[in-house]
Amino acid sequence: MKDRFVVSIDLGGTNTKIALVDSAFSIQQKISFSTKNFFSHRDILISEIVKNVTMLLQQHAMTSRHLKGVGIGVPGLVNFKKGSVYYLPNVPRWKDTPLRSILERKLQCRVFVDNDVNLMALAESRLGAAKGFKNVLCVTLGTGVGGGLILDGRLFRGSSFCAGEFGHMPISVGGKRCGCGGKGCLETYVGNKVILNQARRKLRKKGITLEALSELARKGNKAALEVYKDFAEKIGIALSGVTNLLNPEIIVVGGGLSFAGEFIFKTMKQTIQDRSMPVQAKAVSIKHARLGNDAGLIGAALLVYEQR
Amino acid sequence: MKDRFVVSIDLGGTNTKIALVDSAFSIQQKISFSTKNFFSHRDILISEIVKNVTMLLQQHAMTSRHLKGVGIGVPGLVNFKKGSVYYLPNVPRWKDTPLRSILERKLQCRVFVDNDVNLMALAESRLGAAKGFKNVLCVTLGTGVGGGLILDGRLFRGSSFCAGEFGHMPISVGGKRCGCGGKGCLETYVGNKVILNQARRKLRKKGITLEALSELARKGNKAALEVYKDFAEKIGIALSGVTNLLNPEIIVVGGGLSFAGEFIFKTMKQTIQDRSMPVQAKAVSIKHARLGNDAGLIGAALLVYEQR
Repeated sequence: MKDRFVVSIDLGGTNTKIALVDSAFSIQQKISFSTKNFFSHRDILISEIVKNVTMLLQQHAMTSRHLKGVGIGVPGLVNFKKGSVYYLPNVPRWKDTPLRSILERKLQCRVFVDNDVNLMALAESRLGAAKGFKNVLCVTLGTGVGGGLILDGRLFRGSSFCAGEFGHMPISVGGKRCGCGGKGCLETYVGNKVILNQARRKLRKKGITLEALSELARKGNKAALEVYKDFAEKIGIALSGVTNLLNPEIIVVGGGLSFAGEFIFKTMKQTIQDRSMPVQAKAVSIKHARLGNDAGLIGAALLVYEQR
Repeated sequence: MKDRFVVSIDLGGTNTKIALVDSAFSIQQKISFSTKNFFSHRDILISEIVKNVTMLLQQHAMTSRHLKGVGIGVPGLVNFKKGSVYYLPNVPRWKDTPLRSILERKLQCRVFVDNDVNLMALAESRLGAAKGFKNVLCVTLGTGVGGGLILDGRLFRGSSFCAGEFGHMPISVGGKRCGCGGKGCLETYVGNKVILNQARRKLRKKGITLEALSELARKGNKAALEVYKDFAEKIGIALSGVTNLLNPEIIVVGGGLSFAGEFIFKTMKQTIQDRSMPVQAKAVSIKHARLGNDAGLIGAALLVYEQR
């Protein structure tokens, strides 16, 4: 049985999911808990993770010695080599956390830590929408805008393992200050909050939610469509920059907002075609992510299996 | 003697240089001619190249059979695998030219064709300012803005071999139409012509040249400094996007305008530090290109030597 299983962990800003994954990358069992209940201190959150991993293993009459390893994706910047978290923008008090060494001590097995969108990119490129493609940009549209890169077939992490921050490419010379410290970043134009503010203004509905906005857009409401068109155009502009710089074969888009409607994809595609150089524009396709909410867990398992 | 030499060719919009390069990447002899004299037809330019290569070899009592191969860099988009030129923005009538097969037939030896800034990036990363670094962006500031990428130690070409087009990253949601077909590209803000127009307006000197502008800036002329500061800031904005997306260790900057003065580097550095994410900003340094005008020739020789 040894080495046939991996425990995958997807530490999210809202929920944390933990799964037992087999060598065919099938999720055998999955449990989750609300991350927010453990925001008070990172050690409490880590203890909760360890408790749940142990429980999951016990249910399958296993211990960590039966595992090939544990893979964990976190929503922020990670030093992959050290297995430490630089910081998590939406989870407080995680600055410079040596997560791998903490978990390896507590779980007594090998642990690998990476950025959540990197793991999604890995999963989509091996088993999902980008299977068979060598140069892939993976984008998530949610509370923020995340990115992960597969280049020449391999997860590209950059010199301090923080590559892929697509949401923080500037699309404006001026522009608002971004949470990252920059100015005019894509995220300052297309974050959840920005869209809701625009919707409130354009639709004159103070309490509108993203779900209601999507519903209105799907029914053809003009103001709602305008909000999403503007959103998709801004993303398309940043994508055209990546298309010219990296000449990818495929852009995979996932995350909550990617499901707001096909018109978002249509506008993104159109903007890439309008604004990228002809050869690069011709080479690239843009597709929906295929692995859904489990992409992070599957990616975490792939991460463990792809280590030597 | 066989396999000890390479002929390198640097086809430029202004001059074409041809060199005999040894296996230590020393240029043994170099000849050049004005490209513009042969703009009327690409076949005439190719014949002139072949004539000069043959002449160069004869002077050294060699034929093409003595060569490891011929490497040629061209100022435009290249399908590296096919050895064909998609198009050259500043040299007319080169669309879809099967340059490798033409040259291989005429020269009777192996030929490799690549983009000129790719070859500069290769040279700077192996023997120049970026020696020893794994993730490198190489930028040229001249008539246009060029780019080349070394990622995980290898020249990164992308899915149709057109990656690296740094000058065509949009830094504006709106912005002027660019020669590439895009809108708001970096090049629409920092091309030679744009700078001269700004200089004419700000300095109220109709006939000002780039040389005169640089001289004024070096002497501390306020208006001239403003023009260059704005130029460097725009480049810095695009660089901060690449810094966040690719997390490079080093950015190497060359080309005529990079020598306008140290204040350009200072402003670019400052902008990257101000606008990039802290971890990526900390990881990156920005340096002058070290191999000067011969970088393209040295890169072309490296291209041949690095093929299996």
